[in-house]
Order: sequence, then C-alpha cells, then structure tokens
Amino acid sequence: MDNSCRPIGVFDSGLGGLTTVNELRKILPCEDIVYLGDTARVPYGTKSRETVLRYAAQDFDFFKQFDVKFTIAACGTVSSVMALDGGFGELCTGVIIPAVEAACRATKNKKIGVIATGASIRSGSYGRLIRQLTPDAEVFSQACPMFVPLVENGYTARGCVPAEFFAREYLEPLKRGGVDTLILGCTHYPLLSDIISDVMGGGVTLISSGAEAAKYAKRLLTEKKILNPGTAHGTLRLFCTDSPELFRENAEHFIDIGGAKVERCGLGN
Amino acid sequence: MDNSCRPIGVFDSGLGGLTTVNELRKILPCEDIVYLGDTARVPYGTKSRETVLRYAAQDFDFFKQFDVKFTIAACGTVSSVMALDGGFGELCTGVIIPAVEAACRATKNKKIGVIATGASIRSGSYGRLIRQLTPDAEVFSQACPMFVPLVENGYTARGCVPAEFFAREYLEPLKRGGVDTLILGCTHYPLLSDIISDVMGGGVTLISSGAEAAKYAKRLLTEKKILNPGTAHGTLRLFCTDSPELFRENAEHFIDIGGAKVERCGLGN
Repeated sequence: MDNSCRPIGVFDSGLGGLTTVNELRKILPCEDIVYLGDTARVPYGTKSRETVLRYAAQDFDFFKQFDVKFTIAACGTVSSVMALDGGFGELCTGVIIPAVEAACRATKNKKIGVIATGASIRSGSYGRLIRQLTPDAEVFSQACPMFVPLVENGYTARGCVPAEFFAREYLEPLKRGGVDTLILGCTHYPLLSDIISDVMGGGVTLISSGAEAAKYAKRLLTEKKILNPGTAHGTLRLFCTDSPELFRENAEHFIDIGGAKVERCGLGN
Repeated sequence: MDNSCRPIGVFDSGLGGLTTVNELRKILPCEDIVYLGDTARVPYGTKSRETVLRYAAQDFDFFKQFDVKFTIAACGTVSSVMALDGGFGELCTGVIIPAVEAACRATKNKKIGVIATGASIRSGSYGRLIRQLTPDAEVFSQACPMFVPLVENGYTARGCVPAEFFAREYLEPLKRGGVDTLILGCTHYPLLSDIISDVMGGGVTLISSGAEAAKYAKRLLTEKKILNPGTAHGTLRLFCTDSPELFRENAEHFIDIGGAKVERCGLGN
C-alpha cells in the first residue's frame, strides 16, 4: 500500500485516548485511524513500571497487522514510562514529549506544573524531559488519582462538588507555586479543563497532551510527505479487549463514535 | 498433608479482599492463609462478565499449587458473576451468598439494599439470590463506582467531602425506599462504613460481605471437621500480579500485614 494511505494507530489503556482521536480528526480529517483501548486491563496508571512496559509492548504489536504509518501511545502512563526506557521510534510518539515541548515554549516564568496518574508522576519523566529543554525550569508535579474515575463516571461539569474538591486539593499547591503553564498529562484530563482552569485562573496556559500529540503527528507526517492525499473523511476502526458493548456505552463521555464498529481483540487474555 | 492443616486461599482483584483476611484472622486465628491480589488487572468491577469469569478461573487455578482446603473469592464482582454461572463448589465460596443469607435473616421489613460495583449490579445476582430465600423481598440495588477509588486513595473518614457526597448520592434513594438492611457487596466498602452508616441512619443493619464469608468458612470447616487443630497463629502468604512494593504500600489502607512477605506471581502476563 502507498505509505500515505496507511492508517494511524492510536492506543490507550481505556477510553481516554479517544480525546486524542478527536484532536486527530479535527486537524487530519482525511486520515484513517485504528484505535485500541485495552479495557480488559484498564487502568495502567496504578500499575508498576514493568507491568506498564509489558502491556505497552503488546499494544504496539497489535498494530502490526494494520501496517500503520504512525502510532500514538495516547496513554500518559505508557508515554512517561517509555520515555525513560529508550523512548519512541521515529514513526511513533507518546503524549509526553509533544506536551513537554509545548509547555517549554509556552512558559514565561519557567514554572511548569504537571498533573498525571501516579505511575506517570512516579516515573519522573516529566521533570527530566522538561529540564532537558529548559534546564532552569522549576517543575511542580502532582498525581491526581481521582481524576480518571471522576471522568469515567461523568463527574466533569462545573459545580460538581467532588470534582471541584479534588481539583482544589490537587491543584492549589501548584497554583501557590506560581506555575504559568500546566501540562494535563493524562488524556482523560481535558474533560475536566473547565474545573481545572477555574482553580488555576485564566493566566495559566493548559497544555493538553493528547492535542499536542495530534499536532506532532501532523507535523511529522507533513515532513515525511505521508499525509493521506484523499479528500473524503477518514475511517475510524475501534478495538477493545473487553466487551464492545461496554466500550460503546462508556465511549460516549469522550467522543461521538457515530456508526463506527467496535470490535474485540484477544489481547490481555 | 492432613486435610485440617492445609491453608485457606483468598483472592480478590486487588486489595479489598484483605478486609476478608482480617475477618478470617479474627475468627480463625490458627489457620494458614494464602492471599492473591490480581493487581496487574485490577479492577474487575468495571469489566464484562466474560472477562471477569476468565480472570476468576485463572485465580482459582493459582491455588492448586498450595493444596488449599477452602477458597474464598473475596471479590464481589467475581462472586456475583459466578453465582449466575453455576455457582461455587462445596469447598469454596464467594462473598455474595453468605451476605445474602445474613441479610435475609436480618431484615424485618423485607426491604433489602445492595451496593456493589457496576459489574456486580449488572449481573443481577443479588436480586435473584435474595428472592430465592425471601420471595417477597423488595431489593434496592445501586452501583457505587466511585467507592473503590475513594477507598484505594484513603478518602474514607467522616468529614471527607467527596466521600460524603458520593455516599449521599448513591444511598439516599435506598434510604428513601425504606431499606432496613444494606449489603456492602464489595470488600472495599467496610472501610466506608462510618460514612455509609451516617447516611443510612442507625436503624439500618449493614452486612459486610467479607465478614459473612469468613463466618461461612468457619461454619463449613467446623462442620467438615477440618479446622486447623494448632494453637499457634496461622501464617499469611501474600501474592500479587503487579509490583510487590506497590502492593505493600497500598495494603496499609486495608490490613496490618506486619512482616508477611509479598510475592509476585506470573498470572495475567
């Protein structure tokens, strides 16, 4: 197959990566996308480094059958753990490096906040990568373990008491630290951006890791001259490792999947 | 080995089953216990019936090497899904049937509430089993998906705003329904019993599914004359499928594991 017509692969432990698919479809509407959510083993963010690396290797392998031209690990946990383990090849990316680059461009006072899952924060990747680009940056990291369950259960709107409680609990130390840029290091978090922005205040730039990964994909495919030349809307194939019905039901919090078929694959059995 | 000296196996998707281990050690202090937490794939409660059954079969198989005399599936999700799938053999139990029996004995007005994970509630097991014992019982079921993350992150004390918010959100319909007995159908929930009890009021009997399973084990081992005849404290061996360090760290919310060794087993890889 002509390189440019091959699909883009996107995976996440669950459904959060669908926010990255949304961003991709906005800026690269003609690309075909294959999505994998490892819903039988979600979440990755509470698990150890070794377990996350093993699952990620299986997720990447899954896309070989589709001959993808580019792969996005749209999982903050995989991205941050892999960033310390040799990083990514040329034709794939996680969500962390594009986000770190965007944050280092955006910050004026060099105080950068990072919120992510426990595994991402424990990995130490963000701090290390930020200081590679901006050696004198001050990094404020905060694990937000309650954000994923809040999003997955639909508690994301302004006025939601527990969502606002946890946002204050997690974010006020970063606000007091004076960060002017905040990386949302988990693809679930953009759904909480209203509440996050209310706590942080309007002067703080929020960097969505999934959106930055989508922009990175566009730049790289443009540079390599392998953008899909078609003019029709690209297709979307969705795979999960647990029940497709449950996937379809829960996906509604994240994306309008329309008529896209949801298929089960055998990973993680 | 003499039947009576063989250990008891207890498993859960994660750490919640340690509350059942606590109960076992209180009422059967001389028994040796082997615990398995499938922390690489936790939680089960958000997953489909087929996936839960497959994981449960692997968990039961794990105990064969220890020649256990009795096994407790201390996982509300496994218990409720298996209860509709042929049930348990004679020398094992889930946490649901003992809890249902206790609730049917305790209720005066035959209005019984059940709170559990999404998968447990979707299985319909509780309603079906309660009506087998008490055909005219009225059953009020409620999935409480935020309770497990609250417990796992230590948000369980009276006065904790989000814990009280979700307790009211989930439990007020049951209270309005007039239940006089409430089954805590997930082994994490006893850690929230203060807050649950505050919402439900003192007149409502809380049935802890893990404690009832421990009592059931004692009755059955007594009846079969295979109680451990020793007088020394039994041993505790702990296994998990993800990082032992992470297990030890998080286990502190649930149990004093003291010097017990935590080992990793290869399940779920």
